[in-house]
Amino acid sequence: MDQQARVTFEPHGRAVFVLTGTKVVEAAGRGGLTIDTPCGGAATCGKCRVRIRGKVCAPTAEERARLSEAELADGWRLACQSSICGECIVEVPETSLFAGQHQILEDAQTGSETDVLPAVRKQYVQLAEPSLDDDVPDLLRLQAAVGPVEAGLDVIRHLGRRLREGGFAGTAALTDHHLIDFEPGDTTGRCHGAAFDIGTTTVVGSLLDLVTGREVAIDSAMNSQVRFGDDVLSRIELGSDPAGLEELRTEILKTVGSILGRLCEQARVGREEIYEITFAGNTTMQHLLCGIDPAQLGCVPFVPAYGRSLIIPAADLGIAIHPRAQAVVFPVIGGFVGGDTVAGMVSTRLGEGQGPELMVDIGTNGEIVLAVEDKLWASSTAAGPAFEGARISCGMRATAGAIEKVVFDDGIHYSVIGHVEPVGLCGSGLVDLTAELLRSGLVNSVGRMLPPDELPDGAGEALARRAVLDGGQPAFVLAEPTDDSPGVVLRQKDIRELQLATGAIRAGITILLKQAGLSVGDLKRVLIAGGFGSFIRRNNAQRIGLLPPGIDHSRIHYVGNASLAGAKWALVSTNARNRGEHLARLARHVELSRDTDFQMEFAEAMIFPDQ
Amino acid sequence: MDQQARVTFEPHGRAVFVLTGTKVVEAAGRGGLTIDTPCGGAATCGKCRVRIRGKVCAPTAEERARLSEAELADGWRLACQSSICGECIVEVPETSLFAGQHQILEDAQTGSETDVLPAVRKQYVQLAEPSLDDDVPDLLRLQAAVGPVEAGLDVIRHLGRRLREGGFAGTAALTDHHLIDFEPGDTTGRCHGAAFDIGTTTVVGSLLDLVTGREVAIDSAMNSQVRFGDDVLSRIELGSDPAGLEELRTEILKTVGSILGRLCEQARVGREEIYEITFAGNTTMQHLLCGIDPAQLGCVPFVPAYGRSLIIPAADLGIAIHPRAQAVVFPVIGGFVGGDTVAGMVSTRLGEGQGPELMVDIGTNGEIVLAVEDKLWASSTAAGPAFEGARISCGMRATAGAIEKVVFDDGIHYSVIGHVEPVGLCGSGLVDLTAELLRSGLVNSVGRMLPPDELPDGAGEALARRAVLDGGQPAFVLAEPTDDSPGVVLRQKDIRELQLATGAIRAGITILLKQAGLSVGDLKRVLIAGGFGSFIRRNNAQRIGLLPPGIDHSRIHYVGNASLAGAKWALVSTNARNRGEHLARLARHVELSRDTDFQMEFAEAMIFPDQ
Repeated sequence: MDQQARVTFEPHGRAVFVLTGTKVVEAAGRGGLTIDTPCGGAATCGKCRVRIRGKVCAPTAEERARLSEAELADGWRLACQSSICGECIVEVPETSLFAGQHQILEDAQTGSETDVLPAVRKQYVQLAEPSLDDDVPDLLRLQAAVGPVEAGLDVIRHLGRRLREGGFAGTAALTDHHLIDFEPGDTTGRCHGAAFDIGTTTVVGSLLDLVTGREVAIDSAMNSQVRFGDDVLSRIELGSDPAGLEELRTEILKTVGSILGRLCEQARVGREEIYEITFAGNTTMQHLLCGIDPAQLGCVPFVPAYGRSLIIPAADLGIAIHPRAQAVVFPVIGGFVGGDTVAGMVSTRLGEGQGPELMVDIGTNGEIVLAVEDKLWASSTAAGPAFEGARISCGMRATAGAIEKVVFDDGIHYSVIGHVEPVGLCGSGLVDLTAELLRSGLVNSVGRMLPPDELPDGAGEALARRAVLDGGQPAFVLAEPTDDSPGVVLRQKDIRELQLATGAIRAGITILLKQAGLSVGDLKRVLIAGGFGSFIRRNNAQRIGLLPPGIDHSRIHYVGNASLAGAKWALVSTNARNRGEHLARLARHVELSRDTDFQMEFAEAMIFPDQ
Repeated sequence: MDQQARVTFEPHGRAVFVLTGTKVVEAAGRGGLTIDTPCGGAATCGKCRVRIRGKVCAPTAEERARLSEAELADGWRLACQSSICGECIVEVPETSLFAGQHQILEDAQTGSETDVLPAVRKQYVQLAEPSLDDDVPDLLRLQAAVGPVEAGLDVIRHLGRRLREGGFAGTAALTDHHLIDFEPGDTTGRCHGAAFDIGTTTVVGSLLDLVTGREVAIDSAMNSQVRFGDDVLSRIELGSDPAGLEELRTEILKTVGSILGRLCEQARVGREEIYEITFAGNTTMQHLLCGIDPAQLGCVPFVPAYGRSLIIPAADLGIAIHPRAQAVVFPVIGGFVGGDTVAGMVSTRLGEGQGPELMVDIGTNGEIVLAVEDKLWASSTAAGPAFEGARISCGMRATAGAIEKVVFDDGIHYSVIGHVEPVGLCGSGLVDLTAELLRSGLVNSVGRMLPPDELPDGAGEALARRAVLDGGQPAFVLAEPTDDSPGVVLRQKDIRELQLATGAIRAGITILLKQAGLSVGDLKRVLIAGGFGSFIRRNNAQRIGLLPPGIDHSRIHYVGNASLAGAKWALVSTNARNRGEHLARLARHVELSRDTDFQMEFAEAMIFPDQ
């Protein structure tokens, strides 16, 4: 096992373990922090400055060119150049963060509230006590202080008592034009919201402090619906029956509930202190969460039940947070381009940059969005769950025990999430390993894994030892089984799954560019989103053909779980929420199967590109 | 018993039984139709034209002066002059109705929809069926046709199926910006609403066709909370305890539910065809209906929980109509000036006329509102429930068996509601009888009922026979007991109750006029509202001192149950609803007990005026 080092990011307080030699930008990504690299890691923009304490590598020539001697001596480095060489603390200035994260995670730290404007807000009020000269009704008295908000019966029923018990002082919890609650004392400092990315395979939840806009806890779990099938279509089939729908709805509520429980525990927040919850997921997941029959999503023309975002009582969904909290479910574009994609468009500010931009969101399905000036094309491909580790023999989600990075150089190195024995491969590890096997000739361009007796001459002892036959089929043993671990093996069928996934995505990109009348070279920015573990390395992504050739590396950006980020944005910013609504309706939904070229492009894209 | 005649009003279809000799305007009032008499019945304005078929009285000199020979021959008469002389059909043109009723009952008949603009509306839509070229989500497809309405989960959950079962045609039921339902087929012709006046003693409900604005059924019942006490204060006391509150809430829901059941039965309307319900009641009744602790209404400074109208799901109140119907509960002005008064202000268009106007709403309490230009003063008096027949030994509500009109002339005549044996006295009968007893000297100016041995000389045989001692106290036997009837007797204590009620109201009027710097002579219009049976006769109301002396008869108008009328207006017109909201906030709430003159005025007003 290679050497791992603990890296702590300040002021966020996140700690991760990474392989020594890992670029700081990648390590930060693992910690949930997306450092902005507008120059694509070429060290030309100097935007990604960080300050490292503890073990610091010697600066590269590029760093020496961009930073002063005093800065270098003070620990300043460029995150795109500098690598982790041992345990250290990395201070990430907010100016170095990707704009997406800057808005919600960082502005809160500056204390500025201009950019953090959640729908939910609290206001402490001290009202005049009523008298015969001033017998204004209780609710009107409060409304005079907080505005003409609407109140449900529950709140009105307890308002009078709370006002009198608190000497006509207390805290109004408000959302939009609704009075959610009136609480005794000053609770303005306690106001939380939860944001969820509901994936077909993985569900991630984040708890945010809506006063500061800061994330205070994050947690994820397998979507427990998986036991009914790992792909979207099997869920649609089951959910088309009322009993099945109820079963699936119950499962996702269980998963969300258990994550909420852990988030609250981590941050010592009461469930009733969560006043709003946002959900971004693919169209099917959002339908199932809402208990809406997904049958139409399973047959032509794949029509969703709703388009605009749903703002409904969380209690109606069956979610136990504040009893009058609202749930915001993201708008959807089409049957297979859902709220998760819209959320990603929001958090990456897609289309707000200069020139054509492409976003590829890799989950169980692959969604592709192309933005050109004020036009948007959105599409989805049945990429399969390979990038989430599903249908891969040793595949797994990006959790403890997952190999999430593989490097062949002088030997075979890999990095395991959680600093434990390896248990399987997550998406990024799968991409890395396949790319390295292609480079070393153990897998050929049509995806055939060579058996031990056909290995190329220069393969070397270390590789040759690991190329085996498994049940008569070629396989590659990345990690030998030990007493503690079953070992990690890549098989021929795993390569095929990956080919299907990358081929579908690449063909989709090609079709969208064609419809917009653009070529790959026109793209100014390519955003790769997805919760597939750590970041897929640019060169490996291109080596396996996930992205078409001809895209300059500097234009490729990894934005991590952009869907979760968008759900968080919608929670802390009504502007972001409105932008999602706007983008969803602006997007033109492209059904790839209708394009006569798609099948040909798909077949072609299945072949790994020449290097 | 005197001769009764059946009178049917067209085009409303209402039939009533009245004493022959009853003025047409009064008979119409009994049928729920308020004929406008701007000249106060002086036959000078000619506004109250009606056409009578069947038995028609000979025209009076006044009628001959205002109507042509051809008109007279055609059955046209003035409702303020003409009397019922036998069975007949009275055709009431919409132009002859009081403006209040004109708006809601009549405009619908003309087919004009400009004045009937309910919040609830239905729209039949035929949408394009989806295709791969047009895969717009179901709800968005509908929203494109009906506007960007919000929809709850319930509706979205069944929308897809209903659209497909109906070939993408169906009827959207909408209220404000909410989609209440999407129904199969074209149901635009079926759209109902219910309006309720929740009195402390009596609850009246009306079912309206929201397409035409027409009332299709009306029903009333005793507020079953009465078994816990007949006045507001006893309800407040009980409701201040959570268990008591729940008991009272359950009772009023029972009463409302039973009325709704009968309304639906009468009009052959399904409960789920009622899409909105409005409630006007005094502040306490509205609190109890909503399950809001009324404790603050029972102690200084009598602060209501809410002021603005409440628009809440009817299901939250526990009312079983359409599952997503909204309930609108009227705005309140103060602890004892409630939604019923606001509703009355709306339906009488108080303050929209020329010059100062006074409205007196006589129920269990008496509310008084004075409008002068754009100023409003509102107050309430603890008039007691005498006018609703409560606390009167033979008192009863204005239902079948109630004597609602009494005349002493050549003999003693009375009219009984429902053409049955008399059972008791309702408010108007009580006023008539007391006025007649005052005139004949059987009751003196301080309210003392003379015993048989002190009767004045000119009392006559018929009266003398009925003046008796009952348990040693003077009493007047209006109707002798028979096999079918217990008889109807007025006692000394009944006169005292009436004195308290009229005294409180008259003192309140005096104080309000004083605060506004006006005298009785300045009033251009005095509106008497209340559900006390038929109309109290102007001269009798002044004889017993309900209204201060010095108001010209022509300026006094009876507007019936103005609270129910206002609740109906709010149902059929969002403009009326908004006007209620405006008036409630405009009104200055006057607490009479704070006026140092009130007790003195009250004591003085207890004495019956000299004739």
